[in-house]
Amino acid sequence: MTFELQQTDKNTDARAGLLTTDHGQIPTPIFMPVGTIGTVKGIHQKELKEQVQAKIILGNTYHLFLRPGMETMDAAGGLHKFMNWGGPILTDSGGYQVYSLAHRRKITEEGATFANHIDGSKHLFSPESSLGIQRDIGADIVMAFDECPPYPSEKTYAETSMHLTHRWLERCVQFMKDSAPKYGHTQALFPIVQGSSFDDLRKQSCEFIAGTDQPGNAIGGLSVGEPIADMYRIAQLCCDILPREKPRYLMGVGTPANILECISRGVDMFDCVLPSRNARHGMVYTRDGIINIKNARWRNDFSAIDARPDGAPTSQVHTKAYLHHLFRVNELLGPQIATLHNLRFYLALVEEARSRVLGGDFRRWKEALVPNLEKRL
Amino acid sequence: MTFELQQTDKNTDARAGLLTTDHGQIPTPIFMPVGTIGTVKGIHQKELKEQVQAKIILGNTYHLFLRPGMETMDAAGGLHKFMNWGGPILTDSGGYQVYSLAHRRKITEEGATFANHIDGSKHLFSPESSLGIQRDIGADIVMAFDECPPYPSEKTYAETSMHLTHRWLERCVQFMKDSAPKYGHTQALFPIVQGSSFDDLRKQSCEFIAGTDQPGNAIGGLSVGEPIADMYRIAQLCCDILPREKPRYLMGVGTPANILECISRGVDMFDCVLPSRNARHGMVYTRDGIINIKNARWRNDFSAIDARPDGAPTSQVHTKAYLHHLFRVNELLGPQIATLHNLRFYLALVEEARSRVLGGDFRRWKEALVPNLEKRL
Repeated sequence: MTFELQQTDKNTDARAGLLTTDHGQIPTPIFMPVGTIGTVKGIHQKELKEQVQAKIILGNTYHLFLRPGMETMDAAGGLHKFMNWGGPILTDSGGYQVYSLAHRRKITEEGATFANHIDGSKHLFSPESSLGIQRDIGADIVMAFDECPPYPSEKTYAETSMHLTHRWLERCVQFMKDSAPKYGHTQALFPIVQGSSFDDLRKQSCEFIAGTDQPGNAIGGLSVGEPIADMYRIAQLCCDILPREKPRYLMGVGTPANILECISRGVDMFDCVLPSRNARHGMVYTRDGIINIKNARWRNDFSAIDARPDGAPTSQVHTKAYLHHLFRVNELLGPQIATLHNLRFYLALVEEARSRVLGGDFRRWKEALVPNLEKRL
Repeated sequence: MTFELQQTDKNTDARAGLLTTDHGQIPTPIFMPVGTIGTVKGIHQKELKEQVQAKIILGNTYHLFLRPGMETMDAAGGLHKFMNWGGPILTDSGGYQVYSLAHRRKITEEGATFANHIDGSKHLFSPESSLGIQRDIGADIVMAFDECPPYPSEKTYAETSMHLTHRWLERCVQFMKDSAPKYGHTQALFPIVQGSSFDDLRKQSCEFIAGTDQPGNAIGGLSVGEPIADMYRIAQLCCDILPREKPRYLMGVGTPANILECISRGVDMFDCVLPSRNARHGMVYTRDGIINIKNARWRNDFSAIDARPDGAPTSQVHTKAYLHHLFRVNELLGPQIATLHNLRFYLALVEEARSRVLGGDFRRWKEALVPNLEKRL
C-alpha cells in the first residue's frame, strides 16, 4: 500500500492524497460506507460502486467472526469474494463491538474475553486473534486491536488503557510480521491513537504509534460522547503529530459538518454509520440542511429529493412526496432510496472537499457550507 | 389499447400476442409484478425496468386510495409520475382488498361499504367510485368493480353474487363512457368473469362479460383456495368462451407451474404476490426446483444463486452461501436479491413460454419443465 500526498491546503491543514491498494486507488479525503456484516444495509454492491461511487468500504470483524464465521469466510476465499465487492475493504479490530455489544467482557493483558450478543458463547479477542481473523477476512487495511475507553474516563484509567493499547500494538506489529496474507494481496496495518480527552496522553500515544512506522495511522476513541470541541481539538492535536506522508483515519466520525471540520484539521479517512442508519429513519442530508422526510410538510412536495447532479440518481428522479409516502407506508424502498442518497451525499462531499483542496479554495467553501449542513429543514 | 394475436400453439391453447398501450408494448404471455402501494417491495424502478425487465406492473386501488390518497395522487399527476415508472400500469378495482383486508364490510346494490384497515374510517367503493379512483391513479388498464365470492360458496350465493357483478359491470361500462382519462393517455376497462367453481355459472359469466365488448377480459375468483384441478378446469372453460382476439388475464395466479399450465389453456396475463412475498421469506424459484435459502445446506454452497443468463444479474454474481448469510443475519439485501431473482425468474419463464409458442414446441418444453418447477431442493 502506498500513499501519495498530492496537495496541502494553504489556509488549513486539509490535504488531498491518493491511497493505492491492491484492490484499487482511493482518492483522499474519503468517506468509507460501513458494510457491517458483508453488506452495506439495503444497498446492492453494484449500486455501491456505480451510484454511491464508494471507493472503499468497511467490514466489522466482530460481526463477521460470528456470522458467517471464519470457516465460511475461508471457504469463500475472503470477504471480497464472499460479498462480490472488488474494491478495497478496511476491517476494524472487533474491539469496539466487544466493548459496546458483547456481554460479560473482561479485559486482561492477553486480550478481551466476552460472551457474544447472538448466542452468548464465549470468545477471546487478542491482538493475535483479531489480526488472524482480519487475515481470514482479507481486508486491504486491518486495524490494530486496541481498547477504546468510554467517555468520560478518569485520567488514570485512560493512561493505563493507553499503555495496554500500546503493548497490544507491539504484538499486532509482530503478528503481521510473523504471518502472511491468505489471498495474495497486501494487508496494511493501521495502529490507533488512544488517550481519551487528555491532550498529554494523546500526544504520547501519537508519538508511540507513529514510532511503529506502519503504512497509515488512525485516531480512535473519539465520537464516543465527548463535546464536539474536544473532538476537533484532539483531531487537530493528533494530526499535528502524526506523520504527514501517511494517511490519517479518524474512526467513527461523523456528521457532514464534523467531516469537513476534521478534513480541515488534516484527517484523510472517515467512516460512520450515521448516513446509513439515519437514512433508515428517514433523515436525509442535503447541502441546504437536514430533511426529516417523515414530516407532513413533504407530503405534497413534488420537487426532487435532491436535484444536484453529483447526488444519487434516485434522488434526482424521485420526489420528496414519493419518499415521504414510502416511509409513511413503511415500504423497504424508502430506506433504500434514503441510504443511496445519504451515502452518495457523503461521497460527493469528500469529493468536493478534495477538489477544493486541489483548487485552493477549501476554507472559503467549507466555511460557507458548514452552517447550512446543520440546519433542520 | 390494441391486442395483436401473433401465434396460437398447435398442440395446446397457448398464445403469443402483443398488447399495445400508450405507455408501451407488452409481449404476451406476461407476468405483472405487484407494486401494491406505489412500489414493488424492495425493488428500485430502474431495476424493475432493466433487471427484472418488467413490461407492466400492478397497483392496488384500495391501498393507493388510503395512502397517499387521491389528493396527493392528483397533485402528482397520477401514479406513473408519482412513482417514476414510465411503463404500463394495471390497477385492480379495490374490491378484493375490501373483502380480504377491510373491516365491517357490507355489500349492497350500490357497492361495498367498509372500515379501512389503517384507521378504521368508513368508505364506499362502488363501480363508479372505484373507476373514478382508477381514473385518478391513471392506470393503462383498469379493472371492473366486482364481488369475489369466497371459496367454497353455495351455488345460490355464487349465482346472486355473479349477477350483482354483472349489474356492476354495466355501471362500470357506463362510467367509462361518461368520464375521460385525466392524464391524456387511454385507459382500457377489463371486465371480470366470476361464478365460483360452478361451470354453468362461469359459462354464463363469460358470455355476459364478452358481450360488453371491452378491450380485454379477466378471470377472477380463482386462486382463492380451490383445488388446483378446479383452477385449471375453469381457466380452460373460460378461455374456450372468451374471445380469442382479446387478451385474457387470470387474476392472482400463481406458482410457476400454475402459470405454465394456464398459458397452455389460453391465458395471456398473470399477476401474483407469490414471487415477491416468498422471496422475502427466502424462497427462491429455479428451473431445478424451489430453494429455501435459509436451510443450512446452502451455508457453504458457493455456486451462483442461478447461473442462467436469463436470470437476474445479482443471481449470477452472488452465491447461495452469501444469500443464505444475508437471510441468516436478517439483512435487507437478502430480500432485495431474492425478490429480484424471483421476479426475473417469472419474467424469463413467460418470455420463454412466448418464444416456445412462436417456435412451435411449447407443449414439449412445458411438460418437461413443470415437474422440476415443483421440486423442493
